[in-house]
Amino acid sequence: MPLPQPNLYPPFNIVRLSHVEYRVTDLAASRAFYVDTLGLQVTDEDDTIIYLRAMEERGHHCIALLKADEASVGGLGFKVFDEDELDKAAAWFAGQDLPVAWVERPFMGRAFRTRDPFGIPLEFYCRMDRLPPIHQKYKLYNGVKPLRIDHFNMFASDVDASVAFYNAIGFRVTEYTEDSESGKVWAAWMHRKGGVHDVAFTNGTGPRLHHTAFWVPTPLNIIDLLDLMSTTGYLANIERGPGRHGISNAFFLYVRDPDGHRIEIYCSDYQTVDPDLEPIRWDLKDPQRQTLWGAPAPRSWFEEGSVFEGAALVASELKAQPIIAP
Amino acid sequence: MPLPQPNLYPPFNIVRLSHVEYRVTDLAASRAFYVDTLGLQVTDEDDTIIYLRAMEERGHHCIALLKADEASVGGLGFKVFDEDELDKAAAWFAGQDLPVAWVERPFMGRAFRTRDPFGIPLEFYCRMDRLPPIHQKYKLYNGVKPLRIDHFNMFASDVDASVAFYNAIGFRVTEYTEDSESGKVWAAWMHRKGGVHDVAFTNGTGPRLHHTAFWVPTPLNIIDLLDLMSTTGYLANIERGPGRHGISNAFFLYVRDPDGHRIEIYCSDYQTVDPDLEPIRWDLKDPQRQTLWGAPAPRSWFEEGSVFEGAALVASELKAQPIIAP
Amino acid sequence: MPLPQPNLYPPFNIVRLSHVEYRVTDLAASRAFYVDTLGLQVTDEDDTIIYLRAMEERGHHCIALLKADEASVGGLGFKVFDEDELDKAAAWFAGQDLPVAWVERPFMGRAFRTRDPFGIPLEFYCRMDRLPPIHQKYKLYNGVKPLRIDHFNMFASDVDASVAFYNAIGFRVTEYTEDSESGKVWAAWMHRKGGVHDVAFTNGTGPRLHHTAFWVPTPLNIIDLLDLMSTTGYLANIERGPGRHGISNAFFLYVRDPDGHRIEIYCSDYQTVDPDLEPIRWDLKDPQRQTLWGAPAPRSWFEEGSVFEGAALVASELKAQPIIAP
Amino acid sequence: MPLPQPNLYPPFNIVRLSHVEYRVTDLAASRAFYVDTLGLQVTDEDDTIIYLRAMEERGHHCIALLKADEASVGGLGFKVFDEDELDKAAAWFAGQDLPVAWVERPFMGRAFRTRDPFGIPLEFYCRMDRLPPIHQKYKLYNGVKPLRIDHFNMFASDVDASVAFYNAIGFRVTEYTEDSESGKVWAAWMHRKGGVHDVAFTNGTGPRLHHTAFWVPTPLNIIDLLDLMSTTGYLANIERGPGRHGISNAFFLYVRDPDGHRIEIYCSDYQTVDPDLEPIRWDLKDPQRQTLWGAPAPRSWFEEGSVFEGAALVASELKAQPIIAP
Repeated sequence: MPLPQPNLYPPFNIVRLSHVEYRVTDLAASRAFYVDTLGLQVTDEDDTIIYLRAMEERGHHCIALLKADEASVGGLGFKVFDEDELDKAAAWFAGQDLPVAWVERPFMGRAFRTRDPFGIPLEFYCRMDRLPPIHQKYKLYNGVKPLRIDHFNMFASDVDASVAFYNAIGFRVTEYTEDSESGKVWAAWMHRKGGVHDVAFTNGTGPRLHHTAFWVPTPLNIIDLLDLMSTTGYLANIERGPGRHGISNAFFLYVRDPDGHRIEIYCSDYQTVDPDLEPIRWDLKDPQRQTLWGAPAPRSWFEEGSVFEGAALVASELKAQPIIAP
Repeated sequence: MPLPQPNLYPPFNIVRLSHVEYRVTDLAASRAFYVDTLGLQVTDEDDTIIYLRAMEERGHHCIALLKADEASVGGLGFKVFDEDELDKAAAWFAGQDLPVAWVERPFMGRAFRTRDPFGIPLEFYCRMDRLPPIHQKYKLYNGVKPLRIDHFNMFASDVDASVAFYNAIGFRVTEYTEDSESGKVWAAWMHRKGGVHDVAFTNGTGPRLHHTAFWVPTPLNIIDLLDLMSTTGYLANIERGPGRHGISNAFFLYVRDPDGHRIEIYCSDYQTVDPDLEPIRWDLKDPQRQTLWGAPAPRSWFEEGSVFEGAALVASELKAQPIIAP
Repeated sequence: MPLPQPNLYPPFNIVRLSHVEYRVTDLAASRAFYVDTLGLQVTDEDDTIIYLRAMEERGHHCIALLKADEASVGGLGFKVFDEDELDKAAAWFAGQDLPVAWVERPFMGRAFRTRDPFGIPLEFYCRMDRLPPIHQKYKLYNGVKPLRIDHFNMFASDVDASVAFYNAIGFRVTEYTEDSESGKVWAAWMHRKGGVHDVAFTNGTGPRLHHTAFWVPTPLNIIDLLDLMSTTGYLANIERGPGRHGISNAFFLYVRDPDGHRIEIYCSDYQTVDPDLEPIRWDLKDPQRQTLWGAPAPRSWFEEGSVFEGAALVASELKAQPIIAP
Repeated sequence: MPLPQPNLYPPFNIVRLSHVEYRVTDLAASRAFYVDTLGLQVTDEDDTIIYLRAMEERGHHCIALLKADEASVGGLGFKVFDEDELDKAAAWFAGQDLPVAWVERPFMGRAFRTRDPFGIPLEFYCRMDRLPPIHQKYKLYNGVKPLRIDHFNMFASDVDASVAFYNAIGFRVTEYTEDSESGKVWAAWMHRKGGVHDVAFTNGTGPRLHHTAFWVPTPLNIIDLLDLMSTTGYLANIERGPGRHGISNAFFLYVRDPDGHRIEIYCSDYQTVDPDLEPIRWDLKDPQRQTLWGAPAPRSWFEEGSVFEGAALVASELKAQPIIAP
């Protein structure tokens, strides 16, 4: 099944991925991880929820940590261009027979909740409270010095179907892995904001959130985080890396939060704003697509992910990913 | 005179700045500078012209070095979204009584030349030959490891007028310097592609090109270039830096090519895709806007620039920039 | 068996490790690896041997690559303080009933060959041809930008015995791993020149050379080497890393040359010149001693090494190292 | 006047520079600078004195900040090899008719105070309280992440005389600047511990302390400090840099403490343990000796320094340093 043609004139204008709601079982433990270790900044908090932003963000939050009995993902947020585009988005989802519910959100303007056809809870909005810049308040930089939220990566039981849906709403494939035996797309990276991706999908039991990624200045910040985590009780939370991905060319590290939600620390991918940028194809049999330098990923990285609130899991029909490390 | 309201629905869709034609007096000397020292890659060359691209670019060229009797700038190139947008752009310029001439360009599709109202020669196109990716051919990386062209910076005799014009075609101000005495904008940074700028304007005798900037991975690449230039006969070509700009927050270095054309090496500004991103105002009296760390710039940096072919110079009516270094 | 007391007043004064002779089966392949990939500089070469130095070294060579039918290590070189110390060294080895043979070496003054009691071929000298500095000839920097040879690491079948011998000639333990079950030293790091080590010994079938290490400026140079090797046909030569050692606190990468000789790229250990510097003890059961960040090393790293010319192998009586990765 | 022959067999064995006593007028302001901004660690403090160490140091302190009515330098400390060497040192100074006074120092063993022939107060000792390692307690790293004290740099009214004296006690010249007109040494860098210097002397009204230097991991730590200082009220304390010295090849930054004491942040010089390492000569007319990249130093850097307690100032007879920046 070939890639769909890029949809350069989508039905509404999504600017970028924006925020994620993580449901967590111990707010204090999550705060120690996201704030004291990763270095995200608290913008609001009480006994039930903590809002965080990264250093160059002026929107109110990119993560909401919600106290819950069980860990899950409440939803993925996307910013659209303006109020008109928000209405067009709501109309489009309704036209697809997908649920559209307008919701009240603190620190945000009008917003609606929906789900993609696979059950992933999505939230669209155009206005969030704007906060004063802190990117030059260097005294606040801490941990890995996270600059901004970069992307969501999800397990999908039918990646071709996911690509088709997100392509329909304007996400464009920049790189993809093809399973040359089945002829199907094994994984795809799709962007709106001009980097390698805002969202990515990988074959597996889905829908589940594989990780949320944050952009940092240089690989040395990632080394600093490894040193910090490995000497402050977070050794077991380091899952994979550091390394360079073949796909995206980014330098990466994967860590797990206290509930197991996976966070990628990420830097140095490339600009993708040209509408005629050709997607780069990788073969599933090429191990350098995952790690340019050849080091294998652990089994947990291939298998574990965060469930979305209210989404039923479906196994993939494709054969299991060849695991190259225990 | 206040900033104009951002024009979020411009008459045509410019994707990004794209390329510059530098007219140079000694092709071999220019090649030694741009290729052997900066590390740009030759994509085509003959006795009269050299085409160059940076490491992550797939368009055919970002610089054309044209052999000429006198150094100047032949024009600034911009990529538009598609053929329709190209026609809309041509129609818009014609509607402004600005010259529109369709030109044949090697390695490019349809293109037209025009000038902005101040005389800057501009070139618009939507298709350029696409080359295979080289961003993972690490053996080719050399010099400062330039990744992509980032922006043009120009002297303008009336910055408010320049801002109004470029705002009309969709460039949005991200940061600006105000001369609080005159109430006028002294300098402005305006973007299309989601960084701090594609174009910037600074008060001075204009129009002249102050510099073209290239994006590099980290500040250490800039330190490598300084070490290389200072030990290979290019010491006098190092003009200013390294340092961090207050405006844009970028780490920078300014060097001069053999004809005096100024190149900025640049990294670590921030993402600006939010349509409601508030422009950051700086006061002309604040020296940290130029160098966050306080080191002064040399006089040449404030005064010298490259003339545009065929553009008449006009002095600014604003009082001279307070020079803070010799 | 406790560590021996540091011998602060040794019988002769060794300044530092100096050079290694690698016997290699294909000089052209070795040159491509050491010169074109790692970036060492050729100081002399013919059809049978290539001499190399690193960027800040002024002695003639730190590696000699000698054409041979089988890969092995010809010997390890050490520089002593002056001619008197050289004679004292020869006398001391003779007094231990170890072989002392004065040899003629190109590019070197007087030198003698001996073996340690375990069979490792050693070479002592005080004068080697001095070459002009190249550390500020930045045009020559290439590959991983190796600055200087840093240390030798060896498998020893009885680490306590090796420590006792090298302690007797003035090497001082900075860090060590104790097998708390047997009470024996599993591994030890010993220095002369003021870093964590000039020589190290690890339990295993010995004597064999585990690796020779080179010092580089920053972790980013190591990342550059990984990118280069993984895209120029050397992917399979990347064995372990990047990572940070618990022991030594250094950032590291292990690569294999075309004959399998192992090279460590190394930076950021610490200064050890204080004579009362306390050795740091690690427990064999602590996996962070090897990799602070927890990533396991591959089996080859624990088992494979280069044989020394003319040295008989002896298996260790200690139980095998617990392997923590395939 | 030529350089003296290196004195490889000095009358006693100095291991390294060790500590400095800064007399400061406001302990709280000094603490904010050294601890909260530079990132040195407090090892002891009361209302009159603060002791500090850097991250890889295990000796009790490298700086003592002593509350005083006027800013000055109380003395420079050096560690000798053992008790015998300490006695030999005391005897040697007494033999030169220099004052020797045994003193009681908290956190230290036996120590004596003396002065060099030019009046600089010196302190020698061999044992200081040893503290547990903190170099892997990454949570403590802060500010510029200072690893260790590196060197002292002093103004001397007769550099040839200073070189002769420190050469007599075993410091060896690694690099020097010659005033080719007068034939005299303008400046010299002299080491004990295996780097480019433990002490350096520059022509000027002396004796005064030009600066104390701290070693940091990479140039990026220096960039971090610049960002921090320029946004936390220390902009005026940034005096010179960042840059690379021609002499020593080190990457540097000079900052001033609240009393004007100058601190250099320094990394990436080279290893100098070879006893036959040839000193590198620079000509006073070569501006790259100071800054390889050509940027001038400010006038204050050439003229200002900290007075030593009890030392009479003497002007140099050499003509003033050619100032190349305001």
